Amino acid sequence: MQSFHPPRRLLLGPGPSDVPRRILDALARPTIGHLDPAYVGMMEELKTLLRYAFKTANPLTIPVSAPGSAGMEACFVNLVEPGDTVIVCRNGVFGGRMRENVVRAGASAVMVDDEFGRPVDPEKVEAALRANPGAKALAFVHAETSTGARSDAATLCRLAREHGALSIVDTVTSLGGCEVDVDGWGADAVYSGSQKCLSAPPGLSPVTFSPRATETVKARKVPVQSWFLDMSLVMAYWDGTGGRSYHHTAPINMTYALHESLLILHEEGLEAAWARHQANHERLRAGLQTMGLALLGDDDGARLPQLNPVVVPEGVDEAGVRRALLDDHGIEIGAGLGPLAGKIWRIGLMGASSRPEAVDRLLGALAQALGRSR
Amino acid sequence: MQSFHPPRRLLLGPGPSDVPRRILDALARPTIGHLDPAYVGMMEELKTLLRYAFKTANPLTIPVSAPGSAGMEACFVNLVEPGDTVIVCRNGVFGGRMRENVVRAGASAVMVDDEFGRPVDPEKVEAALRANPGAKALAFVHAETSTGARSDAATLCRLAREHGALSIVDTVTSLGGCEVDVDGWGADAVYSGSQKCLSAPPGLSPVTFSPRATETVKARKVPVQSWFLDMSLVMAYWDGTGGRSYHHTAPINMTYALHESLLILHEEGLEAAWARHQANHERLRAGLQTMGLALLGDDDGARLPQLNPVVVPEGVDEAGVRRALLDDHGIEIGAGLGPLAGKIWRIGLMGASSRPEAVDRLLGALAQALGRSR
Repeated sequence: MQSFHPPRRLLLGPGPSDVPRRILDALARPTIGHLDPAYVGMMEELKTLLRYAFKTANPLTIPVSAPGSAGMEACFVNLVEPGDTVIVCRNGVFGGRMRENVVRAGASAVMVDDEFGRPVDPEKVEAALRANPGAKALAFVHAETSTGARSDAATLCRLAREHGALSIVDTVTSLGGCEVDVDGWGADAVYSGSQKCLSAPPGLSPVTFSPRATETVKARKVPVQSWFLDMSLVMAYWDGTGGRSYHHTAPINMTYALHESLLILHEEGLEAAWARHQANHERLRAGLQTMGLALLGDDDGARLPQLNPVVVPEGVDEAGVRRALLDDHGIEIGAGLGPLAGKIWRIGLMGASSRPEAVDRLLGALAQALGRSR
Repeated sequence: MQSFHPPRRLLLGPGPSDVPRRILDALARPTIGHLDPAYVGMMEELKTLLRYAFKTANPLTIPVSAPGSAGMEACFVNLVEPGDTVIVCRNGVFGGRMRENVVRAGASAVMVDDEFGRPVDPEKVEAALRANPGAKALAFVHAETSTGARSDAATLCRLAREHGALSIVDTVTSLGGCEVDVDGWGADAVYSGSQKCLSAPPGLSPVTFSPRATETVKARKVPVQSWFLDMSLVMAYWDGTGGRSYHHTAPINMTYALHESLLILHEEGLEAAWARHQANHERLRAGLQTMGLALLGDDDGARLPQLNPVVVPEGVDEAGVRRALLDDHGIEIGAGLGPLAGKIWRIGLMGASSRPEAVDRLLGALAQALGRSR
């Protein structure tokens, strides 16, 4: 066996996205201790940068030391107690995963289903909140990575608040790629991932808890079922007041990378980053149209710019085209998940992968692969 | 805010240890997709290399996508069900953490306590197994990072087996630094960390499950409480047979680093690595003796070479010495944890930090810091 040298790829799938050399360089800086004063200073900056990205003043804003799935789990196991009822919106694969989290936390999940590819329907959500007074939380995916649908987070969070429920919001694919406004929405527990529109490697999950969510954690009757994800313990490490207490060893180098990726986002500016994602999405959409390819769903504002679900034309070998893109062009795109497997390709234009040259290169390669596949 | 440039450190605490440039270079190679065929090939090599390090043929041998605390939790939440009884040995801080895991999984923990700094007493364990027939598992820490004590894993695993209990073993600090022999011990669920004697950055937790443990997971009555750590789902991603199914996005770059660190271990050879750790421990011990400093515990074979608990002499400012080492010499050592806080320093000679120059540099710096502190 030898050292692993990955092949050159252009990452245009549902994540990870291309990681710029500047972030890889930060990743490779010498490891120091997780209680080193210099590291603690970096942690403070990281929290500030995450607050900027999430548009929040929440003190409890940190990266969970594991991928996005663990950030999702951190939100559920900290806020949900056995016997609670949680309303879960499912308009894609990740809504189904939320349900798993609710059930495994000993709570009941009331499902609000919408067609895969469509945004969450606020009217159905309101009806579910009415029918379930005392529901602990409303959980939904802002940006469905499995379908490319964007739901109306501001409205859904407002509905939750009006009915006394907490809101749990998945922004794994949206953070940095389109508007995320935690405080403006009044969202309570929001998680994301490092490897999508932030363009850091996978392995960290930024989360932010509102004061209301933090109070809910403190007022729990039973301990959080996960020791590793227990926010009351994690906070004691990330909170600077009164000295840090060791909980677990943070993934030091990964946090260097996330810090750098957030600096890059800050330098570009949130609004500029969102506009760039939108512009490259439009460039892709125009190109696809010329080729006679359609996106799943309608052009009604519920479409994510960073995750483009392309309908596989009749008679085309879905997997064969993906393989040709990878083998002949070094381009990764994603397959459909769940009921959309075999029916769509998922083209991610996220973070550093959202650039005109990437779009053009993909369109050219796709034309070749399709020509051969028909 | 600017890019973070960590200060130069010599890491001689309880982990992370110094990460060689070769591993940092591997870490910084371009990110590729977690389902890329090239990545899947690397995953297979990684499993093979982990089996070498653990001395096991267990098919289920993988890195959990989070730090050692999550590896610990993965073992408990997969094997333990509500209502089970688990015998937990506590001779340091991490035995107490195991107890937390048992209780939060809805099971009862029967504690076998030994003095912090002493190894686990097999006679007490046998008595506890006799007194609790039908106990699901025996859990113990092979190498207590909080005290430097090494317990007799072969004997403890044999006792568990004789009483029909599974064994859950913490090798976070031992793997790669002293003998770990999973199959020879007949251990059932064993976890470790990337940032100790393997000298990779923190963030991954190698785990291995015996066929008996794997069967236990498959025969569960209730689902694993953690979706993220559910081994029946994680396996479907790491197991090559029948194609990979997506569970979560692996921390791609961190796995590059772990792969490289295990290659280095393989090149050196397990026995040679253990002998190196032992030799540098003896060099340190001789130097400390000359300075009139004592190690916690006795020289009875229960002392870890890689984690040296030095008794703080009467009248010496414990924290002041650590600060002086860090500020004046760039050397990190560890503080005591729990009841040993303020009473010991923990000097780690782990992985790439276990080298004669590091020992000599520490001894010189410690002499200066102590001279000033008295």
